[in-house]
Amino acid sequence: MERITVVGAGSWGTALALVLADNDHEVRLWGHRKEQIDEINTYHTNTKYVPSIGLPKSIKGYTDLHAALADVETIILAVPTKAIREVLQNINNATKDPLTVVHVSKGIEPDTLKRISEIIEEEMESTLLKDVVVLSGPSHAEEVVLRHPTTVTVSSKNMGAAEKVQDLFINQHFRVYTNPDIVGVEIGGALKNIIALAAGITDGLGYGDNAKAALITRGLAEISRLGSKMGANPLTFSGLTGIGDLIVTCTSVHSRNWRAGNLLGKGHSLEEVLENMGMVVEGVRTTKAAYQLAQKMGVTMPITFALYDVLFNGQSPKEAVDSLMTRGKTNEMADIFNFFDENGSL
Amino acid sequence: MERITVVGAGSWGTALALVLADNDHEVRLWGHRKEQIDEINTYHTNTKYVPSIGLPKSIKGYTDLHAALADVETIILAVPTKAIREVLQNINNATKDPLTVVHVSKGIEPDTLKRISEIIEEEMESTLLKDVVVLSGPSHAEEVVLRHPTTVTVSSKNMGAAEKVQDLFINQHFRVYTNPDIVGVEIGGALKNIIALAAGITDGLGYGDNAKAALITRGLAEISRLGSKMGANPLTFSGLTGIGDLIVTCTSVHSRNWRAGNLLGKGHSLEEVLENMGMVVEGVRTTKAAYQLAQKMGVTMPITFALYDVLFNGQSPKEAVDSLMTRGKTNEMADIFNFFDENGSL
Repeated sequence: MERITVVGAGSWGTALALVLADNDHEVRLWGHRKEQIDEINTYHTNTKYVPSIGLPKSIKGYTDLHAALADVETIILAVPTKAIREVLQNINNATKDPLTVVHVSKGIEPDTLKRISEIIEEEMESTLLKDVVVLSGPSHAEEVVLRHPTTVTVSSKNMGAAEKVQDLFINQHFRVYTNPDIVGVEIGGALKNIIALAAGITDGLGYGDNAKAALITRGLAEISRLGSKMGANPLTFSGLTGIGDLIVTCTSVHSRNWRAGNLLGKGHSLEEVLENMGMVVEGVRTTKAAYQLAQKMGVTMPITFALYDVLFNGQSPKEAVDSLMTRGKTNEMADIFNFFDENGSL
Repeated sequence: MERITVVGAGSWGTALALVLADNDHEVRLWGHRKEQIDEINTYHTNTKYVPSIGLPKSIKGYTDLHAALADVETIILAVPTKAIREVLQNINNATKDPLTVVHVSKGIEPDTLKRISEIIEEEMESTLLKDVVVLSGPSHAEEVVLRHPTTVTVSSKNMGAAEKVQDLFINQHFRVYTNPDIVGVEIGGALKNIIALAAGITDGLGYGDNAKAALITRGLAEISRLGSKMGANPLTFSGLTGIGDLIVTCTSVHSRNWRAGNLLGKGHSLEEVLENMGMVVEGVRTTKAAYQLAQKMGVTMPITFALYDVLFNGQSPKEAVDSLMTRGKTNEMADIFNFFDENGSL
């Protein structure tokens, strides 16, 4: 049993708080909206984010970050990617003890092209940061709170820290694997949103399951190519944070990125889609970041490039898909796995 | 333009005949039921297998195998796995010229544990067999006949023969890749039906998308382990005939194996399910074959073994899934990719 603070009381933060409470930890759930935290403490519900679910009374809500972090060694950082830098600065000011930061966000920061763990290392006072751990995998929060079987992966530069987080979370419904490849785990989680957007587009065009399966498979190939150039182990992308997360994101109507792509495929403009969604579509930002990364590193990413043209250069989705289908004929292995030639050793 | 005979006028044979006709080949479609072939020649439809689709008049139906094979160098073998030996014996008796045999069936023969290309080499007179090519990938026939974008892989011991088949089929809707790994291409297509059955079970239990994504990911890992022991390149399973075909089979209600698993998950017995389906569920036979193979070769296949217990030893589906979730905690890479340790070089 340990005292753990979950920073961010959205659906994923709340679901993870519930897993930790199921494992008999003392869980603090921090959020900045007073009425939401009052609801958690008074009614033991968080209806906006996890409707119809009663929370264990052992989960205590906090709006005061200083109080939430007192005498805590491990925090779960579950805030939107674009809010992370600001929240980390607040954490620097609210604690004096070194923390293990477990982040559960997915994305690559545009312009800086940094992964989340790199942002954490950059923003946190070095004396306050013990370890950074990432937790990622195919996991809709809606299903985790129902205790449906779910598997995730944890990774860190310090595998001892990752194993400690594995111990905190693992139970009979929530299976946690370790993986030493933090770069691959973070890249897989971020880039899958690009393919989810593209999968939504092919579904919006009415192109069917064959096309979507091809897109996911070939999408995985280009994620692997970019990831391996960035230092990831390409095999990580065959695991839960690669294929697993791709499948869950591309084949579920729960996915926000898939829904945005679906609207694009049906002929709506990007502006209309973003307005209609009323929230950030992470895959749009990630497509730009991945496009920049691929250019910088000289990696071929036909699906990402085609999607970039649809999002930012006004190409029609149908033309983009058709151009992918009529590229020169090729050997599947040479084309998918050309990083093996370049890297030599694999 | 070439003269090509498709042996087997079911949905997949008819869909492939249509792709070849679209590419201006002279296509003969052989079937043994006279009224079906009459329908194809008179009305240019095959309503039982491809409803609502008009076939090009250039596709000619045949019931006489001797006539269908006259002056033909390439045949597409599209018959159910368990009928293959008998059909091959008939082909031996109906032709005098050597043939390139392109097979499009998926399975491993129980007891002999042979792949389809091995069965073809065994049954065909050696003087009548020029090359064996396999064509496989994520491809519902229903979508191919609608000219929806589809990708497949062809493989052969003789890559020149595979490239020739690539040229016969490739067009703007039907993208064909080559892959030199015939063992991997055949194994992937066969074993995916096991995971489709298991995915149907988790869906039947109401376990959700997280569980299914985990199952597909971990299922791919065990397919890769067995396949690499059988001589396949493990990377083939990250391609269209591995992940791609798994996705299409596990996430589509069109899949017969998924539907059978779904009924099992809902509490029906295997006997009830097979009776209800009224047709062969390939994954049941393949589970037995894979179980035998894994035992013989000493490969760990937790999902296949759990499914075997459900199918043949009366274990409850829920207990089987729960036992998979509560195995000892592990490192994802070590567990998924333990063939890399064993093989050394990868």
